[in-house]
Amino acid sequence: MAPRWKGKTAEAKALSEPMSAIVSRLQSSLIEFDSCGLLSGCSVLVAAQPEQTELFNQTCFGRPVITAEKDKQWFQLSLEEALYLCSVMKCIKVIGENKRVKYDDELWRYMISKKVNFPCLFKAYSHLRLKNWVVRAGSQYGVDFVAYRHHPALVHSEYAVIVLSDEDYCRNDRLKAWSDFHCTLRLCGSVAKMLLVLHITKKSSDDAFSNSCLECYCVEERIVSRWNPAQSRENQTMVEKESCKL
Amino acid sequence: MAPRWKGKTAEAKALSEPMSAIVSRLQSSLIEFDSCGLLSGCSVLVAAQPEQTELFNQTCFGRPVITAEKDKQWFQLSLEEALYLCSVMKCIKVIGENKRVKYDDELWRYMISKKVNFPCLFKAYSHLRLKNWVVRAGSQYGVDFVAYRHHPALVHSEYAVIVLSDEDYCRNDRLKAWSDFHCTLRLCGSVAKMLLVLHITKKSSDDAFSNSCLECYCVEERIVSRWNPAQSRENQTMVEKESCKL
Repeated sequence: MAPRWKGKTAEAKALSEPMSAIVSRLQSSLIEFDSCGLLSGCSVLVAAQPEQTELFNQTCFGRPVITAEKDKQWFQLSLEEALYLCSVMKCIKVIGENKRVKYDDELWRYMISKKVNFPCLFKAYSHLRLKNWVVRAGSQYGVDFVAYRHHPALVHSEYAVIVLSDEDYCRNDRLKAWSDFHCTLRLCGSVAKMLLVLHITKKSSDDAFSNSCLECYCVEERIVSRWNPAQSRENQTMVEKESCKL
Repeated sequence: MAPRWKGKTAEAKALSEPMSAIVSRLQSSLIEFDSCGLLSGCSVLVAAQPEQTELFNQTCFGRPVITAEKDKQWFQLSLEEALYLCSVMKCIKVIGENKRVKYDDELWRYMISKKVNFPCLFKAYSHLRLKNWVVRAGSQYGVDFVAYRHHPALVHSEYAVIVLSDEDYCRNDRLKAWSDFHCTLRLCGSVAKMLLVLHITKKSSDDAFSNSCLECYCVEERIVSRWNPAQSRENQTMVEKESCKL
């Protein structure tokens, strides 16, 4: 399925400004201003400098929050976004309720206390972000994430992403029944997305709750699509194309 | 949501020929010819007399099967359809592999051996058919059934039906995760159907595997729809309207 660009100039615009370059600019700017995020329940609030507001919007990290403050734009980051900027991009610090900086391990434990399957969701989120996909919440399609090739203003999302795992603490109830598969695939078809199942496994038996062991998780990418007998009769017959290149 | 009739004359046509009347004609004809169905794996094959072919098509029982026989039209019934015609409408007999008639209890056990959640699916199927809904398989939408107000040639299906139960033998993995709910509702919305969840419970603790105790099952009808804050602010705020009138 080819990317569905929004308008004639969108593809050229995206090519001229790769997402990786914009994310790097956001990273540099956040480091320069020693930016902090404030932990607030299941999200993290960051006050953006004027030049950062545009970069947050362009990279699709967080959602702008409307406040009475005229000179400061706040962004509300999800837990995955916050930990990604904090521990992968190393460009923000996260401050807890006690006004002290929460370091990696403490933050990791906090996030797991809020979302039991956080390790798998975070691994999936990071996996796609590191490949320069723009990753947003997928709840409107009943999936974990949706992935865009570039900014959502330029292109429709290409993948509906469901994160699965055999690990006890990441187990979820999706795609266990065939009818759920049928429902999900029919929906993905009707909104022109591919269903990407990210299957998270652990390489070693290290402590699952240590952030530094994120590399111990392995991601298997599976595109699931309907098998169309008419289309498949004389060429490819695989329902599942494993290890696709994203 | 109003029924979506196919064309201007469809509603009048449906009103002039109520489904209950056509089903009664099929019933009388099948009884008259002492019709039999042949058990064949997960379906039952019935040879239709010329006048019955039209009635099978009009009532949407089974699917026509293409064979080399010119004077006989075969119909392939699902297990639910076959048992409904056999034990509720009492208009066909079902013949097993040994060429002997399978009576109610034996048939019931056979069907459960093929589908562990057959009692709940059959209760749901019968519940809707007895109210003169046309009930077809819902696999293309990832649900158990779809229900039509009249023949699918006249009207689009109004309900996507999922059958749930707390009984161990009927338990399924649908709608356990919120994301599955979101996915199902989004799909139902995009194909203009209401999600009807039929929740099957048992009134008494009788043997679950006895056909005669079908009356011991209770059906709770639940329409599930998205809560739209804007729409609901000043009127109805219920997400779930229980015991709707079908």
